[in-house]
Amino acid sequence: MALTLSYDGTHYAGFQIQKNKKTVQGVLEETLRKILKKKPRLLYAGRTDAGVHALSQIVSFKIDSSISTGALQKALNSLLPPDIVVQKAKVVPSSFHPRYERAFKHYRYTLRYHPSRSPFDRLYTTFYPYVLDLSAMRQAARYLKGRHDFKSFQASDKKERSSVRVLHRLSLRRKPPYLFIDLIGNGFLYKMVRNIVGTLLEVGRGRRTPETIKRLLSKKDRCLAGPTAPAKGLFLVSVRYPSEKGR
Amino acid sequence: MALTLSYDGTHYAGFQIQKNKKTVQGVLEETLRKILKKKPRLLYAGRTDAGVHALSQIVSFKIDSSISTGALQKALNSLLPPDIVVQKAKVVPSSFHPRYERAFKHYRYTLRYHPSRSPFDRLYTTFYPYVLDLSAMRQAARYLKGRHDFKSFQASDKKERSSVRVLHRLSLRRKPPYLFIDLIGNGFLYKMVRNIVGTLLEVGRGRRTPETIKRLLSKKDRCLAGPTAPAKGLFLVSVRYPSEKGR
Repeated sequence: MALTLSYDGTHYAGFQIQKNKKTVQGVLEETLRKILKKKPRLLYAGRTDAGVHALSQIVSFKIDSSISTGALQKALNSLLPPDIVVQKAKVVPSSFHPRYERAFKHYRYTLRYHPSRSPFDRLYTTFYPYVLDLSAMRQAARYLKGRHDFKSFQASDKKERSSVRVLHRLSLRRKPPYLFIDLIGNGFLYKMVRNIVGTLLEVGRGRRTPETIKRLLSKKDRCLAGPTAPAKGLFLVSVRYPSEKGR
Repeated sequence: MALTLSYDGTHYAGFQIQKNKKTVQGVLEETLRKILKKKPRLLYAGRTDAGVHALSQIVSFKIDSSISTGALQKALNSLLPPDIVVQKAKVVPSSFHPRYERAFKHYRYTLRYHPSRSPFDRLYTTFYPYVLDLSAMRQAARYLKGRHDFKSFQASDKKERSSVRVLHRLSLRRKPPYLFIDLIGNGFLYKMVRNIVGTLLEVGRGRRTPETIKRLLSKKDRCLAGPTAPAKGLFLVSVRYPSEKGR
């Protein structure tokens, strides 16, 4: 069974289960246990950090129960807290893994790019009242697109086997009062999206030139990139699987 | 001095100050006291209930300080919690009263009129997954528009001298996944907006006909109207003063 989830990450210590912390996975597994009388082992598409939101996170688990997808979705939505919503439930082949390496993940970072705050988007955007040079940021984005070793953008405390990733899209779109930064790729390193956003903002403020990105990528040193942008502006927008994999 | 305020009412026991409760007025007066070294007496345009939000609430107070409007706005926004934002500060004549009787107030009620919830609008909309007969609701709205004694829509525990009000606009607009109900009038009785919305929803569900509204208005009995719609879907959108009154 696979579920498409939306959640507001504000009150969670991230998606992934952690001892003594409220996590989306923890709350979801506990709710599934109540319904299925058995705790499932959850697989998921993207580990979102504390405070990061999801419009469409994909999770899957094996199920022996004969409950229908519709009944399971309804039962989950009536028991889950209102900041986690199951948008869809679907039967998938047992071979399905939501973190399938060829899946595309779409993340969006939202800045409130406006001189004044609003109380209503404060949990879902990062307030940014300073003037940005968007064309310099777009130039920097062009250097980041494609296949690169993104080691300089990986949180220094986490190391994965390979830090080579393909960034298929990195675009900026202004829709006042917002500035959206969209990233689509086949995988993202830990904090890579927020480190890219933090670096693009430095370019936008004129603190580094777009050309420094090339050096940054080649040096593979986290200390050279910009600061990590705040979690609350980040959304996991969608996960797309190659058509032969269903969903 | 007059201020235009936006606030997220979720964590407040309403606008108006109350002992031992967190209110928007209480927090604002306390913050002004810190800046002006003197607690001002606040006047305001609309008393919003616990959980009701405002895009533009207007407040005013007398000030002896020589602080500029810009400096006051900046100081307030740096000290206020992020769920209250001062959008504008303006010098007004001492005769200005934000609850001026000829001012138009615009309230908007937002329903998430869709089969599934979202975690992101849960604090600002009322989830309404049931099918509504919008044309019946619009017919009922036509009976409510204009000058009427709205006693049947007044919270039964509050009595004002006169319960006659003029409803200049009462319109429904669907913009999926939302249904907006907009009300513009020169004054609203306590809980009148939410009682009108609750009654319109009964019409939409077929529980009463649009024609029953006429009887409801003439009977002047709160027990005949529908239930009070939840606070969180309600916004005070704006307050408009006749042009000769400035602002």
